[in-house]
Amino acid sequence: MSAWVLPDHIADVLPSEARHIEELRRGLLDTARSYGYELVMPPMLEHLESLLTGSGEALDLQTFKLVDQLSGRTLGLRADTTQQVARIDAHLLNRQAVTRLCYCGPVLHTRPDRPHATREPLQFGAEIYGHQGLEADLEALRLALDCLRVAKVRDFSVDLADVRLVRSLLAGLPVTAEVLRGVHAALASKDASELAALTRDFPSASRDGLRALLTLYGDIQVLDEAEKALQGIAGARELLSNLRVAASRLGEVPVTFDLADLRGYAYYSGMRFGIYARGASDALVRGGRYDEVGAVFGRNRPAAGFSLDIKQLVAVVPPHPLKAAIRAPWSEAADLNAAIAALRSQGETVVCVLPGHDSGVDEFRCDRELVCIAGQWVVRTL
Amino acid sequence: MSAWVLPDHIADVLPSEARHIEELRRGLLDTARSYGYELVMPPMLEHLESLLTGSGEALDLQTFKLVDQLSGRTLGLRADTTQQVARIDAHLLNRQAVTRLCYCGPVLHTRPDRPHATREPLQFGAEIYGHQGLEADLEALRLALDCLRVAKVRDFSVDLADVRLVRSLLAGLPVTAEVLRGVHAALASKDASELAALTRDFPSASRDGLRALLTLYGDIQVLDEAEKALQGIAGARELLSNLRVAASRLGEVPVTFDLADLRGYAYYSGMRFGIYARGASDALVRGGRYDEVGAVFGRNRPAAGFSLDIKQLVAVVPPHPLKAAIRAPWSEAADLNAAIAALRSQGETVVCVLPGHDSGVDEFRCDRELVCIAGQWVVRTL
Repeated sequence: MSAWVLPDHIADVLPSEARHIEELRRGLLDTARSYGYELVMPPMLEHLESLLTGSGEALDLQTFKLVDQLSGRTLGLRADTTQQVARIDAHLLNRQAVTRLCYCGPVLHTRPDRPHATREPLQFGAEIYGHQGLEADLEALRLALDCLRVAKVRDFSVDLADVRLVRSLLAGLPVTAEVLRGVHAALASKDASELAALTRDFPSASRDGLRALLTLYGDIQVLDEAEKALQGIAGARELLSNLRVAASRLGEVPVTFDLADLRGYAYYSGMRFGIYARGASDALVRGGRYDEVGAVFGRNRPAAGFSLDIKQLVAVVPPHPLKAAIRAPWSEAADLNAAIAALRSQGETVVCVLPGHDSGVDEFRCDRELVCIAGQWVVRTL
Repeated sequence: MSAWVLPDHIADVLPSEARHIEELRRGLLDTARSYGYELVMPPMLEHLESLLTGSGEALDLQTFKLVDQLSGRTLGLRADTTQQVARIDAHLLNRQAVTRLCYCGPVLHTRPDRPHATREPLQFGAEIYGHQGLEADLEALRLALDCLRVAKVRDFSVDLADVRLVRSLLAGLPVTAEVLRGVHAALASKDASELAALTRDFPSASRDGLRALLTLYGDIQVLDEAEKALQGIAGARELLSNLRVAASRLGEVPVTFDLADLRGYAYYSGMRFGIYARGASDALVRGGRYDEVGAVFGRNRPAAGFSLDIKQLVAVVPPHPLKAAIRAPWSEAADLNAAIAALRSQGETVVCVLPGHDSGVDEFRCDRELVCIAGQWVVRTL
């Protein structure tokens, strides 16, 4: 096999796309900074237990493992950064106040998440710790929307759900883990007959409520229907009211609901959201509330946040034209080199044509050149 | 063991340092862009053979290995990005013209390079392909110096060497690999008696030349001495002359030479340089010419370049003060939220104080607040 063949679902990012990713990266980090989110850089490698604590089986299967020569212990390559940031909030910063953190870096997956997904997403995310109220959820959601606006994503919509609705419907029932998994799978695939079979012996309020969830997706009317269908369920009214408030605070952004959506059930502990670009089948952003994520690090603080993959994002936004460059001859003449340095410090790209070469064909199209006219180096349009 | 303990030589980067690293990263990439270096993003993981081709044993020992579930093949986590960028030049871009590429991302090492080094450097580097002449070496060296200036490193010096001097001294001698390793080790440790023993049966020009190298380190006078000591050695005069030219083109930067320095011998094929900050025992930047690096990917183009670790860099530059923030109350009032959005779009950091919390203590010290005076939201100094 040739040395240049890459593993499946692993790819190089070549010049113009790489430059665009870099610009998106800066725009996202600057937007998070403008909200007061502090940047952290957790490592790529950690002890496996730290990476997987409280995160459920899915992340374990997604995580590459290797052995640390220094300690003989098993390390994991991070497949998600959320746990790491919770560890930093809980253990390293250990503040009483509200803490806002953001991050951006590669994560690695043993298997692609979706049919054409990369196994090396570039994950950007932001988390807010220490506030139980809906304001934290709303801030995370608004920051996520502003990030997509900065990236120039057009026509996006928000999908809201709350994993506590299903929890409320199952509260107090003596169900086995196997039945629970079956119910989750039936809800996820909207399989009414399987759900009916699994919930046959449930109290009628739970059984009917779960069945109702199967059709409770769509626009704001879903919440009216849900209020009727779930009126016997403790806590459901407040959860639905929260969803209504959240939806009302998003301005002009279209909002949909899918009350049976359990994606990330092991992870989220409250409201969750997905943000979809028009025409995309998979969410660009996933986020919500995950209050339990720091518990294993000794501090069970309220937490809300979101993450996205910049490599997925770059594919749905318009291409980004790069500023054209200036070409200059190669010489040791001090005045030429001073002219080049001055242009570069003004943000221009100046490409020196090395002796014996034509000016290269590359992403920096040269539309100007530096020429000596009457003893002065001046920029002339090509 | 607690879930928050990290592996040895692996660390989180916390807020103010992370922000500084991010700013350095941008400054370095922008400097490379201003020279016309195109950004590429090779993957963290590749087939082991691709990562290690032609790179010698040292990189193999430094590279974490793991198994790809999709193919059953052994993958490596990149310990260096240079091979990957050579692969991109040779195989993916495959241009005839001079090609300039840069990159920035984490690399991972099984063992720390130096006693207190991280096992997860953040490697930045730049490479120029396709030009055989000294101009490419000089451009790489000047770009490296400009990068350090942008990072605000003060008081640095350049150390020049050329691995071909030792090669010339050994050219045509029937030495075993074992003797060769011994000679290299004796030169590296400046061990005169060991070198004398190993070279006892060498022709006198080689033996005396190798012995002379042991003392050929220091300022420009070293080149005068070397011209005398190596005058019988084919090619030595031209190599020394190249070093003299390179040194003369670096303006005010202090230059030293160490003609016995063989670091990266398996890798470099010509002139090499290290750039040292005052007081640092290890080079901040290493670079030079490595013409053979693309051969295994089917294209043996001339190549010169350099790399550095931004985590090492951040430790030697002055701390970077962060712009202070503005605090604002949390409210759903449209006029407040418009005022906040306007400030954020001007590059300000505006931190909303969530209900029931004091304004947090974090890296964004608030020196102003947004208050409503006579029906207008205005920024007031705290």
